[in-house]
Amino acid sequence: MVENFTPDIVIGRLPLYLRSLQQMEKEKRHTTSSQEIGERLGISAAQIRKDLSQFGEFGKQGTGYDINNLIMELRKILKVDRVWDMAVVGAGDIGSAIARYQGFADRGYRVSMVFDVDPEKIGGRIGAFIVEDMDKIEERIKEKGIEIAMIAVPAAKAQEVSDLLVKSGIKALLNYAPISINVPDIVKVQYIDPVIHLQRMTFYLSI
Amino acid sequence: MVENFTPDIVIGRLPLYLRSLQQMEKEKRHTTSSQEIGERLGISAAQIRKDLSQFGEFGKQGTGYDINNLIMELRKILKVDRVWDMAVVGAGDIGSAIARYQGFADRGYRVSMVFDVDPEKIGGRIGAFIVEDMDKIEERIKEKGIEIAMIAVPAAKAQEVSDLLVKSGIKALLNYAPISINVPDIVKVQYIDPVIHLQRMTFYLSI
Repeated sequence: MVENFTPDIVIGRLPLYLRSLQQMEKEKRHTTSSQEIGERLGISAAQIRKDLSQFGEFGKQGTGYDINNLIMELRKILKVDRVWDMAVVGAGDIGSAIARYQGFADRGYRVSMVFDVDPEKIGGRIGAFIVEDMDKIEERIKEKGIEIAMIAVPAAKAQEVSDLLVKSGIKALLNYAPISINVPDIVKVQYIDPVIHLQRMTFYLSI
Repeated sequence: MVENFTPDIVIGRLPLYLRSLQQMEKEKRHTTSSQEIGERLGISAAQIRKDLSQFGEFGKQGTGYDINNLIMELRKILKVDRVWDMAVVGAGDIGSAIARYQGFADRGYRVSMVFDVDPEKIGGRIGAFIVEDMDKIEERIKEKGIEIAMIAVPAAKAQEVSDLLVKSGIKALLNYAPISINVPDIVKVQYIDPVIHLQRMTFYLSI
C-alpha cells in the first residue's frame, strides 16, 4: 500500500486540493493546472505535482488535469467516495452548529447522532436530530458501527468523553474543546480551536 | 526584531505551548519541562526547546520552566498580553456559536461586533450582541479600530466579504467558510474547515 509511505503532511494537503477542485467544478470548469490550484491555495505548483504524483499519473503534459477525474481520484484516496456517519458529543452552541452544518454533505460525511448529558437537552430537537443520552453512547455507536466523532464539550470533560468514545470503537476524533487529549495510537485526532489560529496571526500584527 | 526571522511553522506551535501551560496553571502546577509539554502535545522535547530558544532563555537546566513566567513570556510574544476586539461576519449557526463562545476570554480576544445582511437578523440579539447591518461594517470597524474578523458566511459570499473587511482595515481574518480567499500580502488568513480535518483522518481509516 503506497499510502502507508506518504508523509502525513502530504495527506494534509490533499483535502485542500479536493476542495479547490470541487470549487472549480461548481464554477462549471472542466480542466485546471497545478499552477492554478497553487495560486488559489498559496502552495507552489511543483509541490502540488509532487504530492499528486505519489498516488498516480493524473495530469497530462500540456492539457493539465481533468477536474472531474481528479476529484474522483482524490475522493477515492481520501476515502470520501462514500459517506461516513458521525456522532456529535455536546449539544451546546458549538455542537448544535455542527449538527446543523450543511457543509458536510457532498464532502463525505454526515452527522447521524448527537449526545449530551444535560437532562434538559436530552430528547430535545436540533435540526433533524433528537439529542440522545450520553449514557447510551457506547451502545448506540457500536450498534451503528460509527467510527468518527466530534467532541464539543467543555475542556474539562474532553478527555473523559474521548476515553468513552475510544471504548465505543471510534477511530477518528475531531476535538472542538480547547485542550489536547490522549488517545491510543490507532485513533486519529484533529483539533479545531479558533484561538490557536488567532494567536498565530496576532503575532504578526503591530500593536 | 527577532520575530521576523522565525519560521511561521514555529510561530504556529507557540499557541499550543501556551494552551498547554495555561492548562497546567489551571491544574495549580508551578513548574514543567519540555518533556512534559511535549508529551501532552505529541511534539518532541527537543523541538520545544529549540522553538522557545528563538525567543530567549526561559528554562533552567535541572529545574525546568516556571509555568507562570513562561505563560507571561508567550503571551507577550504572541501579543495576547492585551485583548483584541474582533468582528464576526455572519449571524447564522456558526457565527452565533462564535459570538457566544466563552473560550476567547483569557486567551487574548473578545468578540465586539456581529454583522449580517439579513434584515430579519439585523437588530436581533445574539448573546450580548445586537446584530448590526453589513452596510455599516466599514464605518463601524474603522471607528473601533478593529483589526481581526471572523468570516462565517456561505462560501459563495466569502471573497466579497473578505474584500470588504480588508477595505475596512482588517489585518487578520479567520475564515470559517469552506473556500480559499485571496487577500493582500499584508493581511493574514487562517481557515477553519472541519471537513479538511475529517478527510485527513479518514484517509487512515479502513473501510
